[in-house]
Amino acid sequence: MKRIKLVVAYDGTNYCGWQIQPSGITIEEVLNHALTKILGEKIRVIGASRTDSGVHSLGNVAVFDTNTRIPPDKICYALNQKLPEDIVVQSSCEVSQDFHPRHCYSEKTYEYKILNRKMPMPTLCRYTYFYYRNLDIKKMQKAAEYIVGRHDFKSFCSVKTSVEDTVREVLSCTVTKSMEDIITIRITGTGFLYNMVRIIAGTLISVGVGELEPDSIPEILKRRERSAAGATAPAKGLTMIGITYKE
Amino acid sequence: MKRIKLVVAYDGTNYCGWQIQPSGITIEEVLNHALTKILGEKIRVIGASRTDSGVHSLGNVAVFDTNTRIPPDKICYALNQKLPEDIVVQSSCEVSQDFHPRHCYSEKTYEYKILNRKMPMPTLCRYTYFYYRNLDIKKMQKAAEYIVGRHDFKSFCSVKTSVEDTVREVLSCTVTKSMEDIITIRITGTGFLYNMVRIIAGTLISVGVGELEPDSIPEILKRRERSAAGATAPAKGLTMIGITYKE
Repeated sequence: MKRIKLVVAYDGTNYCGWQIQPSGITIEEVLNHALTKILGEKIRVIGASRTDSGVHSLGNVAVFDTNTRIPPDKICYALNQKLPEDIVVQSSCEVSQDFHPRHCYSEKTYEYKILNRKMPMPTLCRYTYFYYRNLDIKKMQKAAEYIVGRHDFKSFCSVKTSVEDTVREVLSCTVTKSMEDIITIRITGTGFLYNMVRIIAGTLISVGVGELEPDSIPEILKRRERSAAGATAPAKGLTMIGITYKE
Repeated sequence: MKRIKLVVAYDGTNYCGWQIQPSGITIEEVLNHALTKILGEKIRVIGASRTDSGVHSLGNVAVFDTNTRIPPDKICYALNQKLPEDIVVQSSCEVSQDFHPRHCYSEKTYEYKILNRKMPMPTLCRYTYFYYRNLDIKKMQKAAEYIVGRHDFKSFCSVKTSVEDTVREVLSCTVTKSMEDIITIRITGTGFLYNMVRIIAGTLISVGVGELEPDSIPEILKRRERSAAGATAPAKGLTMIGITYKE
């Protein structure tokens, strides 16, 4: 029995997120189905990041156990033949049996993209959140600095969660603007709460537009209630960039 | 009667190109329909670049004549309310009656994007041509230099055209590679033949992969036959960037 690690990229537009659920088709389900077909064994993957409906990924991680004789690094090629165009496994390799994509120490990176201009741009609308009011990037950068560190992020967590320990560590949080008017919030951390990146993005937007001051972030963290932070920014602007494991 | 100029952006994935035709829905048709509805007059736009099926645009130009009392710069906002998400008019303004988007002197810029890596990336597949064999960017750059200038581009023109004068002027042609493995061929010219940019892209790909030498471009131009050049690269990698008019 071998444990295989997959790096999975997808356009989340047409999926109800990663995790299997009754209301629609999910990435996890499509992977399970394709792997079961190829390997002739009942396969159930375990994913690292259970991305929401509409969220994209360049490098989510999943593992599964198999008895296949297909060389581990060739599984991705066989698998991609069975997958739709909007899910592509970037690589496959064998890992040790004690590797678990969620329980092992990892650093995850996400990017949230905002198109900040007067008119929407059709070729960007699947991967950016269009916001026409002018955002002050300097203020957003200052607010982002307060996000970095080990904090109780309860104010930045969906109330729908059942998690009790809401302390998480953010290693970096940067805000940049491209020539094409795309503001990118890039955030790396060792773990994230439900909707945490989207609520951070929504809060930084409130700062950028002047509804909140950059210096209000420490107070928002201290209050430990969801209503203290900004709105949850729409899913389509969010992309999981990748995960690194310290092995 | 006023003449109105529109700058039109679209994701061409779901359209049969710009120009009205029997086989499917086109950008021109959708614009005519929306304008006729808003202005209460029968409107027929004239487009600058009759982009192919699947080709995208950030700034194609169209004009039409109208008696409307809506201020010219506000027409785009009214229009966007009636347009689908994948067509967005970026601006509208009044121009002189003798302005014609195809007959007036203009400089058009196109970009052709190739994703050159081992695995496709789902979030890029609508706007790039995936090509997994390694492309030598230096060779492509050298070949691109030969494209610049006033040449007879008959070898770089679809045989389906009826145009007789195949001399065109290319003002610049550059090849760059991004951190994300995207090779961008950016080309500006005063006019292009049918499929010309896609055939130039296909020929530069042949150069990049070693099937053609950069120094073969002058000979290909001289032969004046379509078969001398490389393949027509797929439509989805092509985006019309914009058009500038010297008024």
